[in-house]
Amino acid sequence: MNTGDRVRVSRAGEETEGVVLPSSSPETLVLKLDSGYNVGISREDADVTVVESDVYELEREESDTGSVSEVDFDDDLPTISLISTGGTIASTVDYRTGAVTAQFDAEDVLRAVPDLAGRANYRGRVVANILSENMEPSIWQDLARAVHDEIEAGADGVVVMHGTDTMQYSASALAFMLDTPVPVVFTGSQRSADRPSSDNVMNAVCSVEAAKSDAAEVMVCMHASESDDRCALHRGTRVRKNHTSRRDAFETVGADPLGYVEYETETVEFTRETAERGGVELDIAPAIEEDVALVKFTPNMDPGFLDLCEGKAGVVIEGTGLGHVHSDLVGRIDDLTSDGTAVVMTSQCLEGRVCDRVYDTGRDLLDAGIIEGEDTLPGTAKVKLMWVLANASEESVDEAFRTPVAGELTDRSTPWQ
Amino acid sequence: MNTGDRVRVSRAGEETEGVVLPSSSPETLVLKLDSGYNVGISREDADVTVVESDVYELEREESDTGSVSEVDFDDDLPTISLISTGGTIASTVDYRTGAVTAQFDAEDVLRAVPDLAGRANYRGRVVANILSENMEPSIWQDLARAVHDEIEAGADGVVVMHGTDTMQYSASALAFMLDTPVPVVFTGSQRSADRPSSDNVMNAVCSVEAAKSDAAEVMVCMHASESDDRCALHRGTRVRKNHTSRRDAFETVGADPLGYVEYETETVEFTRETAERGGVELDIAPAIEEDVALVKFTPNMDPGFLDLCEGKAGVVIEGTGLGHVHSDLVGRIDDLTSDGTAVVMTSQCLEGRVCDRVYDTGRDLLDAGIIEGEDTLPGTAKVKLMWVLANASEESVDEAFRTPVAGELTDRSTPWQ
Repeated sequence: MNTGDRVRVSRAGEETEGVVLPSSSPETLVLKLDSGYNVGISREDADVTVVESDVYELEREESDTGSVSEVDFDDDLPTISLISTGGTIASTVDYRTGAVTAQFDAEDVLRAVPDLAGRANYRGRVVANILSENMEPSIWQDLARAVHDEIEAGADGVVVMHGTDTMQYSASALAFMLDTPVPVVFTGSQRSADRPSSDNVMNAVCSVEAAKSDAAEVMVCMHASESDDRCALHRGTRVRKNHTSRRDAFETVGADPLGYVEYETETVEFTRETAERGGVELDIAPAIEEDVALVKFTPNMDPGFLDLCEGKAGVVIEGTGLGHVHSDLVGRIDDLTSDGTAVVMTSQCLEGRVCDRVYDTGRDLLDAGIIEGEDTLPGTAKVKLMWVLANASEESVDEAFRTPVAGELTDRSTPWQ
Repeated sequence: MNTGDRVRVSRAGEETEGVVLPSSSPETLVLKLDSGYNVGISREDADVTVVESDVYELEREESDTGSVSEVDFDDDLPTISLISTGGTIASTVDYRTGAVTAQFDAEDVLRAVPDLAGRANYRGRVVANILSENMEPSIWQDLARAVHDEIEAGADGVVVMHGTDTMQYSASALAFMLDTPVPVVFTGSQRSADRPSSDNVMNAVCSVEAAKSDAAEVMVCMHASESDDRCALHRGTRVRKNHTSRRDAFETVGADPLGYVEYETETVEFTRETAERGGVELDIAPAIEEDVALVKFTPNMDPGFLDLCEGKAGVVIEGTGLGHVHSDLVGRIDDLTSDGTAVVMTSQCLEGRVCDRVYDTGRDLLDAGIIEGEDTLPGTAKVKLMWVLANASEESVDEAFRTPVAGELTDRSTPWQ
């Protein structure tokens, strides 16, 4: 019995039939049921019969680089590149610690999701194998270069498998670094593959369908609801993980998603305007300034957090409401900007627009030299400031920050909307 | 012509009738129309006729303390105490700067909202006159004492007028500091009184109705939608300003509001369980530890922010997803807790529950001595930690933090929900 075999398992009077998925536990058999759910069964006293060998015909050629792999090529199908960075979607239960650690490369993910077969020709590449809380700007750069190279090599779309915890930051980074003529779709999993409620199969399948679409955007593709009916496609710079554990944790902030992928019918529909496939030439600007901090203002904030920013290239402040901080901090912010630190003001409200022209505090902050983050999300603002500081001249940082690059900042309508 | 008079204004061929509201500009007349909206009219070339004097009969007795004021007493009505801390609801346009600054006391607010007449007997008190970004823990204490004293003096409910930017923090502080047998209702305004779309009248009216209800909770009462149809009542420890400028900016995170106040019918309906009027004895525990910081984790976070927390009484970390930070920071957190600093982990997802038992990083953080914030919102967690550190013994901080006080932390169901 091998991964990919259809088996019938009898245990404790119950019969279960499904396809064998990878499991790192010798004591547990993980089966994909025809319902789409995965189930873990103890091997102890289990009677296993192979019904059909290698049902998805996923025999792979070994690549000579060891990091790029391809399955059988079909001229009639588009080519999608799967890039793995680690996270739950590329992980399985690690019985050594009793918890989940990342341990698959892209080939394994493909094997773990047999439903991907027949939808595209796949290329696989591993850029990192980390839990996403350990994501670093240098890996954003590696990832951007890998996506660039895959598109240059002919990929019609790219799926990036990423841990959910910092996916929004990485998606923003790639949205700024890349001019992409094809879809770049981030996806992940909120429940690991060995759980019956795992979202990894549907998210992977929908991501591949989105990567075949005509929206040349950096997007996040995750469950749209708690049902297994469709995934939402979120613009990378406007998405946020808004729930710790739900499968539909990701939401577009302050707007509808760009579109949806119906799981059953495999249709991809966009309800908002997107960049078009082939609309821009492939290009990459991966430079990034690492010396940028994010400081969240709360009542009673220690001014020392701003003192610590002395000499930094940039600071993003997550202010209150329309973008305010305690009046006592305005002088310190003035000192920072006078010293050459770029200070961007955003709002912890998340929705709406920073508007510092209405109240005294706001106008004092403008006088102190802050850059208004407009409707850019605080986390996205940090990534953008890192990118702007490395790619714009010193005197054009303000203008560059306030110029929309990838939907992270929209035109000002009225400040009250 | 005085504030409170009904007037008819002819200007540039247009006739407008309404009640005169306070205006700090000698050039502008602010009228409350019968539709409920307020409108500003230039006095230049305006022809004004008084139709009825002092229509709301708001003549007040002068109080001898200067900070407590009452209008005519009606035995058949409950007594509601209005406490002002400043903010847009207690402000008008300041033409000196061209922007809005706080300048009313509670009496002026009552006069500015004639619709409050006849609903209750009112007591008025000014605790502060600040923009809410300048709110300080010492004012939370003053406010808690003022609310306590008003209830002790016989108030059947309290309405706190507060700037919207930090309302959620102040509401949390009072929820922890007070055992209240009557409703304590925070309200504010997203649009100042001189704007046609001002929400100050409806919010004030609904807050008074909520303060007359039987829910003895610290609540926030603000517009439930962009229409002028009803206000939502949010539990103070679970509410968040989620939009910079919309009138329905406030939302209960991860749950429905406690209830609603219908503006037209004046009915207050609770759809969730609340503490009951008279259910507890009035009590106050206003002590607070000011030396507590909130640090938000983002990729590439400067570890110096944690170094700065050395010696602090407490730190709340706004981690990723289930409550994680970069593995490199775990050792620093261990140093902090070993040094006696209480470190609480929360999630920037806002919705859902911090669960550090699933992944390696989380279990390392537990080993490092963090307190899991469970489903407590990060800002609320900071306020609670400040309060717990001042009111619990050193060895019981963990247990005290994880004990629900005012709905800020709910029982664990499954970590995946």
